[in-house]
Amino acid sequence: MPELRKDPITGRWVIIATERAKRPTDYAKEPVVIEGGKFCPFCYGNEEKTPPEIMAYRSNGTPPNTPGWNLRVVPNKFPALGIEGELERAGEGMFDRISGIGAHEVIIESPDHDATLAQLSEKRVEDVLWSYRDRIVDLKKDPRFRYVLIFKNHGAAAGASLEHSHTQLIALPIVPKRVREEVDSSKQYYQMKERCIFCDIIRQERQSAVRVIAEDDVFLTLAPYAPRFPFEAWILPKQHSAAFEEASVPQFERLAAALKTLLQRVDSVLDRPAYNFVLHTTPMREDTELYFHWHLEFMPKLTKVAGFEWGTGFYINPTPPEVSAQALRDTQLPA
Amino acid sequence: MPELRKDPITGRWVIIATERAKRPTDYAKEPVVIEGGKFCPFCYGNEEKTPPEIMAYRSNGTPPNTPGWNLRVVPNKFPALGIEGELERAGEGMFDRISGIGAHEVIIESPDHDATLAQLSEKRVEDVLWSYRDRIVDLKKDPRFRYVLIFKNHGAAAGASLEHSHTQLIALPIVPKRVREEVDSSKQYYQMKERCIFCDIIRQERQSAVRVIAEDDVFLTLAPYAPRFPFEAWILPKQHSAAFEEASVPQFERLAAALKTLLQRVDSVLDRPAYNFVLHTTPMREDTELYFHWHLEFMPKLTKVAGFEWGTGFYINPTPPEVSAQALRDTQLPA
Repeated sequence: MPELRKDPITGRWVIIATERAKRPTDYAKEPVVIEGGKFCPFCYGNEEKTPPEIMAYRSNGTPPNTPGWNLRVVPNKFPALGIEGELERAGEGMFDRISGIGAHEVIIESPDHDATLAQLSEKRVEDVLWSYRDRIVDLKKDPRFRYVLIFKNHGAAAGASLEHSHTQLIALPIVPKRVREEVDSSKQYYQMKERCIFCDIIRQERQSAVRVIAEDDVFLTLAPYAPRFPFEAWILPKQHSAAFEEASVPQFERLAAALKTLLQRVDSVLDRPAYNFVLHTTPMREDTELYFHWHLEFMPKLTKVAGFEWGTGFYINPTPPEVSAQALRDTQLPA
Repeated sequence: MPELRKDPITGRWVIIATERAKRPTDYAKEPVVIEGGKFCPFCYGNEEKTPPEIMAYRSNGTPPNTPGWNLRVVPNKFPALGIEGELERAGEGMFDRISGIGAHEVIIESPDHDATLAQLSEKRVEDVLWSYRDRIVDLKKDPRFRYVLIFKNHGAAAGASLEHSHTQLIALPIVPKRVREEVDSSKQYYQMKERCIFCDIIRQERQSAVRVIAEDDVFLTLAPYAPRFPFEAWILPKQHSAAFEEASVPQFERLAAALKTLLQRVDSVLDRPAYNFVLHTTPMREDTELYFHWHLEFMPKLTKVAGFEWGTGFYINPTPPEVSAQALRDTQLPA
């Protein structure tokens, strides 16, 4: 018998197929393959093909917009929003709009065209996480912004238009709907219980253990109870904290290990699928410290999403999280 | 300058590209082509390849599960939910679940394998709409259900696994999240203004006219102010009504014309794209009559949806609704 399950944070119901469940091997394997061989604006020597860099990590004192960097952040060449201008809020009868002010940046994760994020060393993955933090901290100073979205598309099927590994960032004058819902819902929960809903989930999941993918002293990686997608996974800090950008040095170290390990597990079980991940940190200029809990949401691209998901916010997930968690937990990691 | 726009019903913000806007011709044309030639369980003579029919429209007195029908409704052979059993609600610590009870049906819209819904006669499209109504009315009697979702996937890119034109139906023991949001939000608006938010939108859109695609005395077809997708379109009854299934005979006639015309316009402007549509009618066993307003949401499948849309509920739409509405409005319909 299939089951309907409710996500405790957003209230979304999903159908989980528990009987005719799809196991990892039931998904068509379409590994993301880095082909190379074409001109790439993210490679060494092509620095002038991107807009001038916003920041870079360089260990050798090379000047901006030249080779020698380990990580590079540049404006998106085709930005969805414009960085210049006044933020104008206006009505149009009963409708509301804001001028399209925002930042749209690209984090080039490494000079190595062929390495995926999963293949970078832990130290380099940590650099990527530090760059997220540095950009959030910098963009927070701009009073026009309310949220910085960090998201990664890996593989064409997941929306990546360039194969050289990169992450995107959008700074927005509004809080996106799903983050708004999480913040509002966790606030409501806190008002009712005086506890963080994410902390409660962490406590329960550690106890039952069936949806735990990995755990160390700092982070918990789990398959959520009511996932929208097969093999959806979340990484949460075990200690309560609303802002990713306020994590400590040891936390960044451990998060790099947790993220790299999750990506390796997924590559091993699902044969290098396309994927997306999104960082949910606190909105700016809101005091969410008591009740919000930052986390990273990871979604491999295994199934075609049909129309009624869009029109209804209702999902059918053919792989129970207990099955995906076990497969990811049990897989052998490369030495 | 791009614009951020807020959907007045759900509160969702979207980025609308107003300058480097994509016009209809900018989208890769991938017309849905009916190839035929393969075995099809929805064609005449193969009635025993589907589960026994739930109902059929037959004008010639032929017996069930034999050829001669104009429209046929059958259970989905691989249902996401099971129709038999008790509805059990249970907790699992802080989590909530319900046994996966529901109906999952397929409406085979016509015996003609090659005809798309846009190509059926108005009379046949009207039959399809009547079948939606008949199934909703029947399933409403089952006290276990709270919602009947009617949705259509057209073309493989939009999630259709069989090319013979059909619609799907899922009856659920819960109200899907997006419908829940629409109902709750329109209720809130009503409490504030004593008016239906959809009626207000209809009034304003008719006045400004820039997003109107088509209008007759009964229905308005428009591009919504803050569409998630390029060429998204809604069809709304101009007279306030919460329940699709309570529409009148003349309304069904006119809706058939409005829907067929919209599909023809889309086929003409976008060269027969894959698409989805979803019917939003009132939940069962809730008195929404004063504030909810049923409608149909249509979304062609033109862009790849990347990860951050999933993780954030935030959309970038490269075609302003004023541009899509004008293109659809101005296209020449087949005589």
